[in-house]
Amino acid sequence: MIVALAGGVGGGRMAAGLAAVLPPRELTVVVNTGDDFEHMGFTICPDLDSVMYAVAGVNNPQTGWGRAGETWAFMDEIKRCGGEGWFNLGDRDLAVHVLRREALRRGATLSEVTRDLCTRFGIEHAIVPMSDMPVRTRVKTKSQEHSFQDYFVRLRCKPHTTGFRFAGARAARVPLMLQRSMESTQVEAVVFCPSNPFVSISPILAVPAIRAWLKQRKFPVTAVSPIVGGAAVKGPAAKMMRELGLQPSTLALVRHYGDAVDRWVIDRQDARQAAAIERLGKRVLVTDTLMTNRRKSAALARCVINFALKK
Amino acid sequence: MIVALAGGVGGGRMAAGLAAVLPPRELTVVVNTGDDFEHMGFTICPDLDSVMYAVAGVNNPQTGWGRAGETWAFMDEIKRCGGEGWFNLGDRDLAVHVLRREALRRGATLSEVTRDLCTRFGIEHAIVPMSDMPVRTRVKTKSQEHSFQDYFVRLRCKPHTTGFRFAGARAARVPLMLQRSMESTQVEAVVFCPSNPFVSISPILAVPAIRAWLKQRKFPVTAVSPIVGGAAVKGPAAKMMRELGLQPSTLALVRHYGDAVDRWVIDRQDARQAAAIERLGKRVLVTDTLMTNRRKSAALARCVINFALKK
Repeated sequence: MIVALAGGVGGGRMAAGLAAVLPPRELTVVVNTGDDFEHMGFTICPDLDSVMYAVAGVNNPQTGWGRAGETWAFMDEIKRCGGEGWFNLGDRDLAVHVLRREALRRGATLSEVTRDLCTRFGIEHAIVPMSDMPVRTRVKTKSQEHSFQDYFVRLRCKPHTTGFRFAGARAARVPLMLQRSMESTQVEAVVFCPSNPFVSISPILAVPAIRAWLKQRKFPVTAVSPIVGGAAVKGPAAKMMRELGLQPSTLALVRHYGDAVDRWVIDRQDARQAAAIERLGKRVLVTDTLMTNRRKSAALARCVINFALKK
Repeated sequence: MIVALAGGVGGGRMAAGLAAVLPPRELTVVVNTGDDFEHMGFTICPDLDSVMYAVAGVNNPQTGWGRAGETWAFMDEIKRCGGEGWFNLGDRDLAVHVLRREALRRGATLSEVTRDLCTRFGIEHAIVPMSDMPVRTRVKTKSQEHSFQDYFVRLRCKPHTTGFRFAGARAARVPLMLQRSMESTQVEAVVFCPSNPFVSISPILAVPAIRAWLKQRKFPVTAVSPIVGGAAVKGPAAKMMRELGLQPSTLALVRHYGDAVDRWVIDRQDARQAAAIERLGKRVLVTDTLMTNRRKSAALARCVINFALKK
């Protein structure tokens, strides 16, 4: 079994590839919930939904979030009514939010709700939130601290980041479903999807049981670099690296993760860094990592699986 | 000041006409909330919304409920996901439901929420729920009792009605805004809009303070008959009359209301009943009561106002 840690866009693309290649019982996707927030009475789970939509094949490949063929009558109306227009909720996307709210209200856990939603979308693979308890990513700047969505959506990542905090992480327990996967001796590899290291993977690693489990691992951890040619494929990862005093490169990311990652999948554009990464004691696979369509996601997933499982 | 009691379709059309003719301070529309129910975590207020949409001019004139130019992506998705598809919530309509839920959750009363929503729709006239406390219309049949929406939407009014019950009415108090209108000496007339007598007007009259206020009135009550040519203009009023052993005619309705109504506005198609209604001690105005567009609503409103205020 492979356990993949995933954020939003890159996580969704990688998860879709892995799900296309692996049978359901051989994959568990653990998804970041640090971006989750309450908005207009809904629990918004951006990464869970991105991964779910991508695996179901109903995602919008252009934006990297939301549904394909989405319409915006609800948002138009909310804006016309003077409601909060800064966070976009598509008409189709709303169905998931209404169903999730109803289920949570009835006492279901986030992991139970997610499994139910996945079933409704015909997904058999396990997509599991990193915790059923709220963990909230806080983005620090010199003068203040922002909630993640405030930083990410409203301020469009403009503030200069000085660090991150994952409020609630210390007390967060993993969902029972994930606990079972973690206790299973079947886990042969963990894969970090090409997701933002600071606000997608870090929050997952901040959950104590996940961190402890990875620390005493008997399987290799393989990361697919989200940095290609000195830039993030999508999102603010490179900008964050610069602000935190890191070179926006795969090599700097390898140093950043240190012992947490054993094997690296890097893009052909960064092939010249392979030797330096190997000198840090890591195995390296150089390949085409850009998942511009579902076929490429599956192709990369095949490479990653082979590499991650190699003795 | 005129106080109008209103249900959904006919109530909305009449209210729109009255609002087109009267300045804001001279009209209060009291709306039935007996149809209200909780659905997918939303408080659905069919009559309040029908009246609000009609007065704002954003209603769907074909259906009599919901918004003009509505789209259904949310519902399509809910149905595809195996969610509850029996009650239609349009994409635009959802905006009102989300805003209402948010405001209620923050502790606002239904009348406060309604006023806020009306403001967002540019409505200056007072549209007030009959109570901020839940009153729920129950439809009795020989064998059981249905919730109103179960009877009305899911069962399409098919069960044979034996009577109605307005659960919660006895304890229901009127909203402060309505209390003030009722205590004002400015009220010159009350108008029953051409709404269903059993499930639109009756629930309003079942609120003790409203019934008591009307009983000791010093102003006339004028009703616009919802029955035209032996049939209801819209909805199950005629069917209900038959099932309750009444002839579906304006005359039977006049007898049904008895002393509660002083003056009747009836359609030209029922002109032959005018003499009989007058013999029951009522004043009668015969006119064209079919409000097939906003112009006709305003024209009827002008006639009704003149007739209702006549010394």
